[in-house]
Amino acid sequence: MGSKVVIVGGTHGNELSGIQLLKQWQAAPEALARPGLSVSTLFANPSAHQANRRYLEVDLNRQFEPALLGDPALGNYEQSRAKVINQQIGPKGDSQTDLVIDLHNTTSNMGPTLILVDTTPWDIQLAAFVKSRMPEAVILVEDAKPPQQWGYLCTVGKRGVMVEVGPQSQSVLRHDILEQMETMTSLILDFTSLEVQGELPELPTSVLAYRFLDTRYLPMDEQGTPLAMVHKNLEQNDFAPLNPGDPMFQYFDGTVGYFEGDRPLYPHFINEAAYYDSHAAFSLAEEVTLDVPTA
Amino acid sequence: MGSKVVIVGGTHGNELSGIQLLKQWQAAPEALARPGLSVSTLFANPSAHQANRRYLEVDLNRQFEPALLGDPALGNYEQSRAKVINQQIGPKGDSQTDLVIDLHNTTSNMGPTLILVDTTPWDIQLAAFVKSRMPEAVILVEDAKPPQQWGYLCTVGKRGVMVEVGPQSQSVLRHDILEQMETMTSLILDFTSLEVQGELPELPTSVLAYRFLDTRYLPMDEQGTPLAMVHKNLEQNDFAPLNPGDPMFQYFDGTVGYFEGDRPLYPHFINEAAYYDSHAAFSLAEEVTLDVPTA
Repeated sequence: MGSKVVIVGGTHGNELSGIQLLKQWQAAPEALARPGLSVSTLFANPSAHQANRRYLEVDLNRQFEPALLGDPALGNYEQSRAKVINQQIGPKGDSQTDLVIDLHNTTSNMGPTLILVDTTPWDIQLAAFVKSRMPEAVILVEDAKPPQQWGYLCTVGKRGVMVEVGPQSQSVLRHDILEQMETMTSLILDFTSLEVQGELPELPTSVLAYRFLDTRYLPMDEQGTPLAMVHKNLEQNDFAPLNPGDPMFQYFDGTVGYFEGDRPLYPHFINEAAYYDSHAAFSLAEEVTLDVPTA
Repeated sequence: MGSKVVIVGGTHGNELSGIQLLKQWQAAPEALARPGLSVSTLFANPSAHQANRRYLEVDLNRQFEPALLGDPALGNYEQSRAKVINQQIGPKGDSQTDLVIDLHNTTSNMGPTLILVDTTPWDIQLAAFVKSRMPEAVILVEDAKPPQQWGYLCTVGKRGVMVEVGPQSQSVLRHDILEQMETMTSLILDFTSLEVQGELPELPTSVLAYRFLDTRYLPMDEQGTPLAMVHKNLEQNDFAPLNPGDPMFQYFDGTVGYFEGDRPLYPHFINEAAYYDSHAAFSLAEEVTLDVPTA
């Protein structure tokens, strides 16, 4: 049987790369076969995809917090779907699935980004393996809280990671983005297979990564209407340093808002279309060097 | 009073640059003032914007064909809105408005594009004026049929043009894109003002433009499911030449579809998100040199 891996696509219905890859793998499952692994796929939110939307009622990728999964009164479509997925491939905290790989797109220019929700030796070795074989990959760590407390779908597995690739407009399929997602997913399978067999190759001793700190919102008036937009210097420049004193917001009255900080930080999810209703402007990360444990 | 100009934003509810510019101009109308012109603004599809969608029922920018405007039985939201706009600033064919400037965004990398629906001396002089003062501007001519037969909103004026700027994801506001739209619109007002006063400056004798020929669709199976995506060589390369024999489609079975033609043509609206339901892959244009009539 081997170690159980589930690859999830369509957690957001208008992020098409993962949904397309699922179709291709269903037609040619041998592409997923790896020694020591039992790999299956899951189409997480088919109804949202049918409607050509991110979600129908609430963001499915925020519904996997234990309190939400455990409350049967929360019964809208995505809340229900989360509970079914938790039963099918979880349950969270005592999972039958060794690894969940959840595939996402962003409209931001984040390139192929591997999002880790934990920094166990396994996660860091994975990051080093992927980065060494795909130098354009970006490693983003979201460990502000323990994985069990995140609402992300990938946290229903014993381990979970997200593959986040952009820029790609919602409802659009880009050839280059599809290739990057396929390459990164394939490398994650390669690593997992080598690791369970005890055959990990020598890895770099350290790996450059970004650690999520917080999300910055557009300045708003008392009615919640944005007073500014993201400054053009940031546009398309995900993971480029934002230095103290750099322009950050362009106000509609012509003035400029500057970044106040004591060190360079790294914006990402810049102007992401899916976050526009919350008026999130971008997320900020710090640069970190992760020491890679020896295999 | 002067020559009557109407600037239209929000014809598509999720194309935010024009909607934002309308807000700014309403707060500071002096930005639109030009000698000899009477300039007003119109928010074309506020309900679609409220819903954060391109349209509620049908594409408003296809509802201005005479047969549609003249059929009272066509009464859904956008069909009704088109009739009201036609009364307010038209009527088409006998318009009270000398010029309609309709502001649009695209998710494609088309830069700041001036779309002409006619090639009168006025249109060509306008193109030469804009291009000489904004070299990054692209001139796109859609004259496959007379303006009166198009369904475009801008055809309700005696003259009409569209300002189409991208790439910008739906529901997102980009600072750089906003600036390009503002610059091009301002130049159109400058030209119109100079022209009505008989004060046109010397213009270049010719202007490079692209003439729309047809739209290419993704190859589909008998159920209407796409069998391919746009080849990555075209991605982000709007208005770059597509030569006979160049890759055009990447089929999901791994094969490649090549462009069959006898001369280079110029793809644009490549992978435009709004056209995804029709499976339009891109439009094709030929390069043309327009001789500019002397003023």
